[in-house]
Amino acid sequence: MKLLRVGPRGAERPAALDGRGVLRDLSGLLPDVNSALLADPVALGRTAEALETGELPVLDPAGLRTGPPIADIGKIVCIGLNYRDHAAEIGAPLPVEPLVFMKAPDTVVGPRDNVLIPRGSRKTDWEVELAIVIGRTARYLETEEEARAAVAGYTVSHDVSERAFMLERGGQWDKGKNCETFNPLGPWLVTADEVPDPQNLGLRLWVNGELQQDGSTADQVFGVYEVVRHLSQFMTLRPGDVVNTGTPAGVANGRPEPKPFLRAGDVVELEVDGLGRQRQEFTPA
Amino acid sequence: MKLLRVGPRGAERPAALDGRGVLRDLSGLLPDVNSALLADPVALGRTAEALETGELPVLDPAGLRTGPPIADIGKIVCIGLNYRDHAAEIGAPLPVEPLVFMKAPDTVVGPRDNVLIPRGSRKTDWEVELAIVIGRTARYLETEEEARAAVAGYTVSHDVSERAFMLERGGQWDKGKNCETFNPLGPWLVTADEVPDPQNLGLRLWVNGELQQDGSTADQVFGVYEVVRHLSQFMTLRPGDVVNTGTPAGVANGRPEPKPFLRAGDVVELEVDGLGRQRQEFTPA
Repeated sequence: MKLLRVGPRGAERPAALDGRGVLRDLSGLLPDVNSALLADPVALGRTAEALETGELPVLDPAGLRTGPPIADIGKIVCIGLNYRDHAAEIGAPLPVEPLVFMKAPDTVVGPRDNVLIPRGSRKTDWEVELAIVIGRTARYLETEEEARAAVAGYTVSHDVSERAFMLERGGQWDKGKNCETFNPLGPWLVTADEVPDPQNLGLRLWVNGELQQDGSTADQVFGVYEVVRHLSQFMTLRPGDVVNTGTPAGVANGRPEPKPFLRAGDVVELEVDGLGRQRQEFTPA
Repeated sequence: MKLLRVGPRGAERPAALDGRGVLRDLSGLLPDVNSALLADPVALGRTAEALETGELPVLDPAGLRTGPPIADIGKIVCIGLNYRDHAAEIGAPLPVEPLVFMKAPDTVVGPRDNVLIPRGSRKTDWEVELAIVIGRTARYLETEEEARAAVAGYTVSHDVSERAFMLERGGQWDKGKNCETFNPLGPWLVTADEVPDPQNLGLRLWVNGELQQDGSTADQVFGVYEVVRHLSQFMTLRPGDVVNTGTPAGVANGRPEPKPFLRAGDVVELEVDGLGRQRQEFTPA
């Protein structure tokens, strides 16, 4: 299933794409695409059945904004340096275990909303990522099989980063990861049954139409199930939590000087195989 | 005003201490102590007036659990190395600007709830802190006066930390800061009008009855208004957000070997002048 949320910011309604790609309104069926839905296999099954009947109201996508695909994200956990090619481009050694940082849920915007370049920013950078959406409480998981069962689905995440705030302003990365609008998410939450092999997905990102990142989750240092298993040793993951699993090579910070950081007016497009496409214009905060 | 939330976990009701310290039920007046209340001076004023009449129902505190004092925390931003004596004890240079990391809101428990020592932990440590509770959206504030207006109030925060997870497991602190139950908060949200000088508050913490931390917010490198002003340059603070402002000297990690890290059965008590007292038993996860 491809679940999404459409409508004005803060007033999105639940929707889904049916098997033919037609946008269907779920608001007669569900209050929202949220943590309660993700944790409820019965409600998810009922939704899939309703979609198959072809009787749910059709929505006209023209002019309709897409919001983030989850209404109530609890936390966003991020994995750094998780692609071999990205670690190589910035000259960092491969991590021996997943490197973890956090992004606040209020950084999340829709996949086509504007992204704000922070005031005083000189180094706003892009990062296309595969995001995991959690569907079951995960706590001290022992196996990757248990981790797989905790995954509700996947979505595209843009882990926008301010490299100077992150690396030159006091020692921890979070300062450059939590700026307003810095986590476009979506368009769809694609349920895990439609992503049988999350370690074989292409990820691409363009700036003003020029391809900048062109990677594959096959290059991840720690695969998605291992990431979930590992995180569950250090924190409890809950339905509606999101895990950004890292970015492949091709970020501005990996280039020779002068590095091509984002400027007002730039347009970034990004996609992950099977998970849809994002497009943001970068504007001044 | 001293606002709090009492009752079983997940089913707390809003309450307040009146001028004589009597516990009063606010549930006939308000849905909860939450971000909407903190952002609404009219509702806060009405609550204060109702308390003064002495007509709100009295609650018997005997056997009544106290929950965290805010129902819907959006994010928890933490400041590291923000006391001169603490930086000195661990041999760290004073930060030139606030050092920022994050704690997920689902780490929050009530002030007397048990804290879980993570499996595999060898270095679970204590940190008494003054927490700021935000009452107004703060974005690119220019002055400390603007920052002061964004503060709804204060509470006691226990920023429990696993030093090995934080410092020896992959490069960012968040891995040792986000373990389950690692942020006891409360007992009260004390509104800012009752804390005219937040830079003159004593903080103390005991382990099994022995005083371990005995500091003052006068020793903070960056005061609470400067912290709020500074953070607002990097992220948007919103009503219901919490800022843990750092810990004074006296943590286990600052001691000579063998450092006295917490073990199952240990009891930690902590307090901040005027903001109340916490007590937690540490138990295995």
